[in-house]
Amino acid sequence: MNYYMPVGKGTDLRFEILTEDPKSKARLGKLITDHGEINTPVFMPVGTAGTVKAIAQPQLEELGAELILGNTYHLYLRPGHQLIHELGGLHRFISWPHPILTDSGGFQVFSHSDLRKISEEGVVFRSHLDGSSHLLTPEKAIEIQRALGADIIMVLDECLPYPCDFLIARDSMEQTLRWAGRCKDAFEKSAGCWHPHQQWLFGIGQGGISPELRRECMLRLIDIEFSGYAIGGLSVGEPKPLLYELAGESARWMPTAQPRYLMGVGTPLDIVECVAMGVDMFDCVMPTRNARNGWLFTHSGHLVIKHARYARDERPIDESCLCPVCRLYSRAYLRHLFQSKEILSAMLNTCHNLYFYLDTLRQIRDAIASHRYLDFLAEFKRKQEVG
Amino acid sequence: MNYYMPVGKGTDLRFEILTEDPKSKARLGKLITDHGEINTPVFMPVGTAGTVKAIAQPQLEELGAELILGNTYHLYLRPGHQLIHELGGLHRFISWPHPILTDSGGFQVFSHSDLRKISEEGVVFRSHLDGSSHLLTPEKAIEIQRALGADIIMVLDECLPYPCDFLIARDSMEQTLRWAGRCKDAFEKSAGCWHPHQQWLFGIGQGGISPELRRECMLRLIDIEFSGYAIGGLSVGEPKPLLYELAGESARWMPTAQPRYLMGVGTPLDIVECVAMGVDMFDCVMPTRNARNGWLFTHSGHLVIKHARYARDERPIDESCLCPVCRLYSRAYLRHLFQSKEILSAMLNTCHNLYFYLDTLRQIRDAIASHRYLDFLAEFKRKQEVG
Repeated sequence: MNYYMPVGKGTDLRFEILTEDPKSKARLGKLITDHGEINTPVFMPVGTAGTVKAIAQPQLEELGAELILGNTYHLYLRPGHQLIHELGGLHRFISWPHPILTDSGGFQVFSHSDLRKISEEGVVFRSHLDGSSHLLTPEKAIEIQRALGADIIMVLDECLPYPCDFLIARDSMEQTLRWAGRCKDAFEKSAGCWHPHQQWLFGIGQGGISPELRRECMLRLIDIEFSGYAIGGLSVGEPKPLLYELAGESARWMPTAQPRYLMGVGTPLDIVECVAMGVDMFDCVMPTRNARNGWLFTHSGHLVIKHARYARDERPIDESCLCPVCRLYSRAYLRHLFQSKEILSAMLNTCHNLYFYLDTLRQIRDAIASHRYLDFLAEFKRKQEVG
Repeated sequence: MNYYMPVGKGTDLRFEILTEDPKSKARLGKLITDHGEINTPVFMPVGTAGTVKAIAQPQLEELGAELILGNTYHLYLRPGHQLIHELGGLHRFISWPHPILTDSGGFQVFSHSDLRKISEEGVVFRSHLDGSSHLLTPEKAIEIQRALGADIIMVLDECLPYPCDFLIARDSMEQTLRWAGRCKDAFEKSAGCWHPHQQWLFGIGQGGISPELRRECMLRLIDIEFSGYAIGGLSVGEPKPLLYELAGESARWMPTAQPRYLMGVGTPLDIVECVAMGVDMFDCVMPTRNARNGWLFTHSGHLVIKHARYARDERPIDESCLCPVCRLYSRAYLRHLFQSKEILSAMLNTCHNLYFYLDTLRQIRDAIASHRYLDFLAEFKRKQEVG
């Protein structure tokens, strides 16, 4: 079975900065991929196994999602990147004609798999599905992501737990940098071999909780030259002030002309805060995972729908929300669905939470466009903290 | 807490027969309720606990559902009929402004509850949720259904297993008839006390597998006078020829001017067959439950999506289907979602299967309207049996 195919050449991928906020580092931009334009700052819903859980693709489109994330680890194990490539790549397989970003699989290997062993070559892990053993190397991570065909793909990095010793973080950073170089080589060698559209490779900065290591890692990544840069290894349990400090410190050294991606972050307020530091891209399972657990975001904080106080509450989740769920359903009904473990509970909660996130990003972009980002941030923070 | 409210008077509920097939007993009709018109023959998706599992109300509307079924047993136990009544009734609680039918709860008591004891008064059962003990009497079944406020409500009947002895079936039929009379009394006494819209009470014919008892039961129900009549106790494991014989024998004695409802039936072919006997209304969990188990209906029989042969199959479920799922997704993707136990699997499979049922009913109505029902039946049967 040969799943390589001759490919043509797509249009160039571009990142344009449209305006910058005068009082913060927030910037409004546009990422132009072969599968369409992405307005930044952007939030990407997480589509772990080729589906953003509990929502169909047309509805995701209606909510305004412009970019979704696919997890290489999950897709590699099931249904397999070869199968997806044979069927025309991930966009076609999941019927999502818009941009997709895939992670390298590293984060899931470090967080999900039963057993893992890191060496210079890569990381051996056992599948959480059937216990089978697999070796993920930088070259393999690129091969899988080439086969999947996402518009933006990521280097393999080593993810550290929090807290982590400086010396361990430094060694790990060196490993991450060597792997980044190998990913870049593998990426360049495989250019034009897989899909008729272009793919972009982003580097990932690590460095634990040391601002010095974060800075060094980012500068050395820039020497390797990537199309964009990500901040990895945050939102792993560290306190908020530290998350903001390290994100800011990393962002400070990232090239201004290229997209900056803060991986796995975070709450709506985290996103609003980190946009002020110049971050352009975010992903997080929080809106979708929390939805399935009955945790709903509102303009004045969150609500936990299972609470008895909502049993007779005829109001929508959020009275100022214009999402399809808030237009139609009461808290009382949503509580009933949650208590009854109905699939519709996950569906409606997911729709509302994703709308909340995507709408927050629309507000973020409006605030940057009108050069009033810090006012927006202060107001958003006040409202979220009241709730 | 008082959940009675003063009510006005709605428009009359009517059943109009528009045309009859010249070569069979199939008829095209219209049920006119305070919540809208229903074209018959009609299939009602089952909304057990106030939701048709895995599909949202606006999508159900788009698929063409005109009437849905709510299960009194489930809604009584959770969230409770009082709560639903306080919140304006079932239509409002679940945000479904179209017609609803509720069953009496009897079938679920006989099939789901851990422990039950039947007496002249009613049936004592234990909740499958928390083991609490409840007494369901004919009067209680009416009270609950009045509180829920469905457009069409059902008498409490005793449901027998298959097979069942003639003498037991006869005694049970007598019980069912006495309960039917008590339901009618309770229904009349509570008229105008609950909701501003009208409700219709249907009787349910039983009689096990005896055509004589089926006939006697139906004739004695007609003496009590209901707004419509149902055939109960079928599709409980009996062979198809017996199902068709008993449904036909029951339908033969039902008043021609009133709607005829065959409860809990069945496959698409069962419905097509029973329409020819003059049945107007159907409900069944099959499209929704089978969907969640990966069993998909097509114009040439069914397919079981988990099979390995679909792993690389880029075709839609059914190449002649115009449903939202067949327009967008491949069998390969649907198989992946099923194997991965993704919520989207249940969502998409449910959407397709319900579309298939509701579209079959559209074809049934077209065939009756053009007086070619038996040709349609023969063609439908041929295609289903090929599959």
